[in-house]
Amino acid sequence: MLNLIRDTLDSIKPVPPIRFETAQIHLDSLTKPPGSLGILEDLAKRYAAIHGTNHPSVSKKSVVVFAADHGVVEEGISAYPAKVTPQMVQNFLNGGAAINVLARQQNAEVVVVDIGVNYEFAPHPKLLDKKIARGTRNMTKEFAMTKAEAEKSIAIGIQIAAQLADDGVDLMATGEMGIGNTTASSAIFAALSGLPASKVTGRGTGIDDEALGKKISAIERALEMHAPDPEDPIDVLAKVGGFEIGGITGLVLGASSKNIPVVVDGLISSAGASLAIKLNPAVKDYIFPSHRSLEPGHEVFFDLLQSPPLFDLKMRLGEGTGAVLAFNLIEAATKIYSEMATFQSAGVADNIKG
Amino acid sequence: MLNLIRDTLDSIKPVPPIRFETAQIHLDSLTKPPGSLGILEDLAKRYAAIHGTNHPSVSKKSVVVFAADHGVVEEGISAYPAKVTPQMVQNFLNGGAAINVLARQQNAEVVVVDIGVNYEFAPHPKLLDKKIARGTRNMTKEFAMTKAEAEKSIAIGIQIAAQLADDGVDLMATGEMGIGNTTASSAIFAALSGLPASKVTGRGTGIDDEALGKKISAIERALEMHAPDPEDPIDVLAKVGGFEIGGITGLVLGASSKNIPVVVDGLISSAGASLAIKLNPAVKDYIFPSHRSLEPGHEVFFDLLQSPPLFDLKMRLGEGTGAVLAFNLIEAATKIYSEMATFQSAGVADNIKG
Repeated sequence: MLNLIRDTLDSIKPVPPIRFETAQIHLDSLTKPPGSLGILEDLAKRYAAIHGTNHPSVSKKSVVVFAADHGVVEEGISAYPAKVTPQMVQNFLNGGAAINVLARQQNAEVVVVDIGVNYEFAPHPKLLDKKIARGTRNMTKEFAMTKAEAEKSIAIGIQIAAQLADDGVDLMATGEMGIGNTTASSAIFAALSGLPASKVTGRGTGIDDEALGKKISAIERALEMHAPDPEDPIDVLAKVGGFEIGGITGLVLGASSKNIPVVVDGLISSAGASLAIKLNPAVKDYIFPSHRSLEPGHEVFFDLLQSPPLFDLKMRLGEGTGAVLAFNLIEAATKIYSEMATFQSAGVADNIKG
Repeated sequence: MLNLIRDTLDSIKPVPPIRFETAQIHLDSLTKPPGSLGILEDLAKRYAAIHGTNHPSVSKKSVVVFAADHGVVEEGISAYPAKVTPQMVQNFLNGGAAINVLARQQNAEVVVVDIGVNYEFAPHPKLLDKKIARGTRNMTKEFAMTKAEAEKSIAIGIQIAAQLADDGVDLMATGEMGIGNTTASSAIFAALSGLPASKVTGRGTGIDDEALGKKISAIERALEMHAPDPEDPIDVLAKVGGFEIGGITGLVLGASSKNIPVVVDGLISSAGASLAIKLNPAVKDYIFPSHRSLEPGHEVFFDLLQSPPLFDLKMRLGEGTGAVLAFNLIEAATKIYSEMATFQSAGVADNIKG
């Protein structure tokens, strides 16, 4: 394993429990019945605990959108042609995609990373060129990538997280674009969970029954041919994954190692995050789930994380759109923590005896 | 019935279906798989349809927090003493409550209305003095209010909605404060649904088993003594309601009559909105539900509205906190509608044949 990955894994530690206790005491002093803000209080507590502060705030937010292509697309598993991957990258750079709109609303930066798109982009100030190859290979015929490529994709994510941390980003999110990448993600979830492909595979961007049959068949054949080891996340990534998924794994590891909360988007992001959890379960303390995707495989992630999604808006777009919506809830939580009056400061009786 | 209420009810019309169809066509032209933003697309469509525009935006948001006291508190049904109602009103005016924090984050105005608090406030530029009485009467002994008072509370809400509409507010929300008001709300839901009090009554701000028993008993006795007519919402409001609940009913009616979307918060707000639905079912087109409260009675509202909540964060604070969080999702939806590139403008292939 690359030294960068090894060192990063070694540096990720669970958040000290005492910090959660300190935060709980503060939350219970605020002018509201204890616990009455529900999950918002959980978010506030964990955000404060991760940052180790009693004055939590969100100053700089970034969503990292990793883009890559997938050799498995030639199996007829997507509703869109592969050329849509670079077209959508261009749309991200032009600010016209859903993730741009939502990130602007949340005052968050969109970092676009070409980690393996089958297209040569002209240099662009907003595009990080980290291309490993022009797409993965067709997992139904060979490994999607080599072990070295898998490690490289993770290392790229770690490096980006480190750079963002240096830039003062204190809340990160994962996003992605890649025609065919729900197939790779479902394959990863099948490999990690042992569930049959049919149980973790959905319609992605909206395929019909015929394409769904091809998608499930492609995953079944790839898993049977390569037998990825569920206890070796890098083996799973190499055999049936994608470059953007490895990048997400790295971003989750890198954020956790820098003590920065990271919001995980839908199915594909969750596949990457699940590999990170398998590499070091302590990352669970730093992961904030966002929405529940319509894709059935997503449940494997929530089981691994041992935490439910924040909301369920029947979304299935990816890009980081669900994660960026969650930014607002996390920021709301930090403001509740830092800005509300206490019973004492407001002169409010804190119970029936008050 | 007061002429203002009668005229307002007459002026509320369903949103024309053609507007939904027009909005759907636009949404399907945007650079995303059709329907892939799920409920966000539904929000965008309805917001655009209500305002009758193909360029929806949210320019001015207000949450109206109606505060009032409840005579039923003397039955020992709350975890907090009645004096907390005016203390929290002061907290709202000082900007230290949860609703202030969340409204600041969403760039929304908080309108605080004394519609029946048992306290004489000094004049304050941020406080609307609309006091009907110093709290309702104890519903277990007499009607909570007269029919004239009930109508007056609704009229106040209608007038406030009209004023906000004149001020350019294009998205409203309901909020409230009133120690004892989950008791009044649960009584309303029991009356409207015919369900036993025990099925629609929860722990409010966090009462113990003994107080919960008293709360259910108080509701049972009031309903048995007064037999409110479920088909006469003003009768229900007068017999077991609250002034702030009537204000919310009026706000929902007034917003709907002015073609302005109104976001409904938790249990108490939903009790007021349910009475509005009973008065004119067309208001359902203008109501945006927000969160699912931990209170069991809340389900009666979702049944009447025939729509589920947007999210479930285990909140039970009221004030308008859940509604204000929903502002962000509605605003996200309008931005998706108005700011995303189309397949044509972005040069993105819109399907496998593209």
